[in-house]
Amino acid sequence: MKFNLEANFTFGQDVSKINKDIEKFISEANDNIVKKYHKKIASIGNFRIGKKSLFLNIISYGSFRPHNALLQIKNSISKELGKKHKIGIREIEITKYKIEFELEKKPLKEISIPHAEVECTGKNVSINLKDVSEEFLRKNYIDRMIKLVKEKVENQYYEGKGEYWKLIEESEKKKPIWSKDPTEEMVKLGWLKQGPTKGKWFYHSQITAILRAMENIAINEVLKPLGFQEIIESHVVPFEIWLKTGHMEGMPSEFYYIAEPTTRDVEKWQKFIDLTKITKEISYDELNKNLSIPHAGICYAQCPVIYWAFKSKTISEEALPILVYDKTAISARYESGGRHGIERVDEFHRIEPIYIGTREQLLTLREKLLDRYKHVFNNIFDLEWRMAWVTPWYMQQAGKIDDTEIHQDTGTIDFESYMPYRGSREKSEWLEFLNLSILGDKYIKAFNIKAQKSELWSGCSGIGLERWATAFLAQKGIDPNKWPTEFRKYLKKLPKEINFL
Amino acid sequence: MKFNLEANFTFGQDVSKINKDIEKFISEANDNIVKKYHKKIASIGNFRIGKKSLFLNIISYGSFRPHNALLQIKNSISKELGKKHKIGIREIEITKYKIEFELEKKPLKEISIPHAEVECTGKNVSINLKDVSEEFLRKNYIDRMIKLVKEKVENQYYEGKGEYWKLIEESEKKKPIWSKDPTEEMVKLGWLKQGPTKGKWFYHSQITAILRAMENIAINEVLKPLGFQEIIESHVVPFEIWLKTGHMEGMPSEFYYIAEPTTRDVEKWQKFIDLTKITKEISYDELNKNLSIPHAGICYAQCPVIYWAFKSKTISEEALPILVYDKTAISARYESGGRHGIERVDEFHRIEPIYIGTREQLLTLREKLLDRYKHVFNNIFDLEWRMAWVTPWYMQQAGKIDDTEIHQDTGTIDFESYMPYRGSREKSEWLEFLNLSILGDKYIKAFNIKAQKSELWSGCSGIGLERWATAFLAQKGIDPNKWPTEFRKYLKKLPKEINFL
Repeated sequence: MKFNLEANFTFGQDVSKINKDIEKFISEANDNIVKKYHKKIASIGNFRIGKKSLFLNIISYGSFRPHNALLQIKNSISKELGKKHKIGIREIEITKYKIEFELEKKPLKEISIPHAEVECTGKNVSINLKDVSEEFLRKNYIDRMIKLVKEKVENQYYEGKGEYWKLIEESEKKKPIWSKDPTEEMVKLGWLKQGPTKGKWFYHSQITAILRAMENIAINEVLKPLGFQEIIESHVVPFEIWLKTGHMEGMPSEFYYIAEPTTRDVEKWQKFIDLTKITKEISYDELNKNLSIPHAGICYAQCPVIYWAFKSKTISEEALPILVYDKTAISARYESGGRHGIERVDEFHRIEPIYIGTREQLLTLREKLLDRYKHVFNNIFDLEWRMAWVTPWYMQQAGKIDDTEIHQDTGTIDFESYMPYRGSREKSEWLEFLNLSILGDKYIKAFNIKAQKSELWSGCSGIGLERWATAFLAQKGIDPNKWPTEFRKYLKKLPKEINFL
Repeated sequence: MKFNLEANFTFGQDVSKINKDIEKFISEANDNIVKKYHKKIASIGNFRIGKKSLFLNIISYGSFRPHNALLQIKNSISKELGKKHKIGIREIEITKYKIEFELEKKPLKEISIPHAEVECTGKNVSINLKDVSEEFLRKNYIDRMIKLVKEKVENQYYEGKGEYWKLIEESEKKKPIWSKDPTEEMVKLGWLKQGPTKGKWFYHSQITAILRAMENIAINEVLKPLGFQEIIESHVVPFEIWLKTGHMEGMPSEFYYIAEPTTRDVEKWQKFIDLTKITKEISYDELNKNLSIPHAGICYAQCPVIYWAFKSKTISEEALPILVYDKTAISARYESGGRHGIERVDEFHRIEPIYIGTREQLLTLREKLLDRYKHVFNNIFDLEWRMAWVTPWYMQQAGKIDDTEIHQDTGTIDFESYMPYRGSREKSEWLEFLNLSILGDKYIKAFNIKAQKSELWSGCSGIGLERWATAFLAQKGIDPNKWPTEFRKYLKKLPKEINFL
């Protein structure tokens, strides 16, 4: 990796008379660098002293970052020459910053990133920075830009490849009761109605009773027996939290953003109110004047806010593993297409258990969770299902692809259900209706969560009520009389339908 | 009420040669108006025919609206002269529209409304319309402007007056267990943590267990015995619904607005994503490019979406009364100040039962609901409470103040709880922790809901879990051992606290 940095200092005063001092200073700075690293690794290659300016060129190889040397030199000059000659640096301009390195794989197509021109020849990349400020150098941007280029090339190799999917286990085949699409049938019966905005539903009492049965089963058969406790989190998630979890860079196009009023002052809203009263329409110009740009969004998954609740805490050993779940925050995901029935929607209801503990505790817990889930699917739902290792989104989209991560310890397991209405077992797409992950220390580190002694890991599982309901109804039908006996212990009868004329 | 309208028609062709035809036409139109109403009520006062123009002045009194006559004349001229002389109207300009009328009460201060200058002399008002288009006349804006002026004057008399409040009943005095602020104590114990954004909370398992006990009590002791069925609504409410309920003009400064991405196209989001990866900060400029202006907000109260679900339906008689509740949609209200503890927040969890039926059915239901609620507060909570008629917000803020509405049939009853931590019974503010309303046909009409035969009314009740919990805890303390026996049947023990170092 080669770095070539050219910078121009502008002084407040004429420095031509103290030429020698500056030369000596740079020579010393160079000696220091060379002594510390070696001439082949880093050196001040070139410099020119003008009337009120100093031009510097620093070249380095490997892990040494010339902008760090540059910022150090700036500080030292300011201090030493400032003291001795009362000379200050007015401005520092980065005229060139070129970074060259070799990639592991040849890029498959052009790469572009903000604030730079990227050129690739074979595996060789050169990044030419544009519009680079001192602040830009100070913050950790350069290294993140290098990382981003590498990640983009890596992603080119993953693009188009199917999701990682490795079968672990499957249930025996079951004969479905019917092969209809449960959503369509429930809409016909008036149990369900498309919501007032796209991708959302209004659940009348019959399907509500089914969703609540799913919730009760998950809590009573899985979570309570394993010692999980309910918490209630806010469903308004600020960007700071999503910056830490990687959601902000992972899926910003899928959030429902929240804009707050800039004020509650009635005077400021008066024109909007008056216009609404007169026109019975929305004046978007007036509305826009009174809204802030979003700083938060509606819950996407529940775990980020739970991790936030434990941020910077040190947990006592005897409290481990922490086992909590939220079933209150409603999730919203902006789907541009591909919505279907109640199984693929913009708004859904999910129980999300999360667990924080040692590697051993979590591996044991995973076995117990899998046992309890299988008990529900086999003995209560009598479902045809399969279970597989998959590549989880947060590794895929937030730039963390790493083949070595997808092994038995960490990663995500999906449960899928056969959906008779979609066609044959072999050819149709099954429905993912449950996932279970162990995530290593990714979020633990992001939120600086510690234990008294142990190294911590964490994980979570997503129990989507709409998904559980569709998986069950697609195989077992919507007639309670035909449901499995064990399920009927939770729900025997549905509320009476309202008769409309 | 006097109307004086002046308008100018511009023709596409020279009309000076067909002077006589136009004169005859206007004279006939005037005859028609006069015949229908009387000369004293409405007449075309004055007109002038130019080369390519026609000036018209219409004056009227009472309920006759000159703009309706103007639009009729425009249509007729277009049709008749168009056919005979191939002459069309290019433009219609309203040069003056003045409306004068007398108010019931003298305005207490100046009045202003959009699109008009309003002048008041004593009880006399004159409205001089500005920038009025043909579309403006066509829609029902003029009448709504008159109504808005009347309403603003009316509101001047209500402003500053306290809320209407009339005691109905009160429980016996109870000796509180303590006089501490439950929120503060629970924060100290780690049961509660301020949420990641303002006015929201993270409820750890202890307070969550208490909130769930409240929910179970409300459902098992009040709603189920009376035959209420659960439904699940979307918590994303489009402006169309709030326009119908009056919320849009009533409290636009209190909504949490929802902005959707303009696209899910990854290309469009690439720069935002790259910048987030490099800077680990949000580029609000880039974000702004990819967001739509809001067309919806987060649930403010649950009833609007439930009414929407029954929109334009005709309900069979035997299905009445309809008794449903939502406990899923989370409510968000933007509070600029006055937040306190978990009892006054931006985000809260509420069960909202709503009822649709005949007047008699709802009056009977109200008695039953009051009985069940009192049973909970007396026998389970052992609470000191009082109950009063109050002026509900939707009558107060959405411009529907009407003294005759606040009587026994319709209106809102509040339950209030004594809060020992706030001071003495007599001098401190009690906490409103339950409301119950019968609203007449206001929402029934707004959503065009009908029954087979009967006239329908509707109503709703708001069971805020945070409010129930604070009312109870403020009097009964947070030690489960000291809670009333009947409450302990719902919650005997709290989950163990997590020990942090």
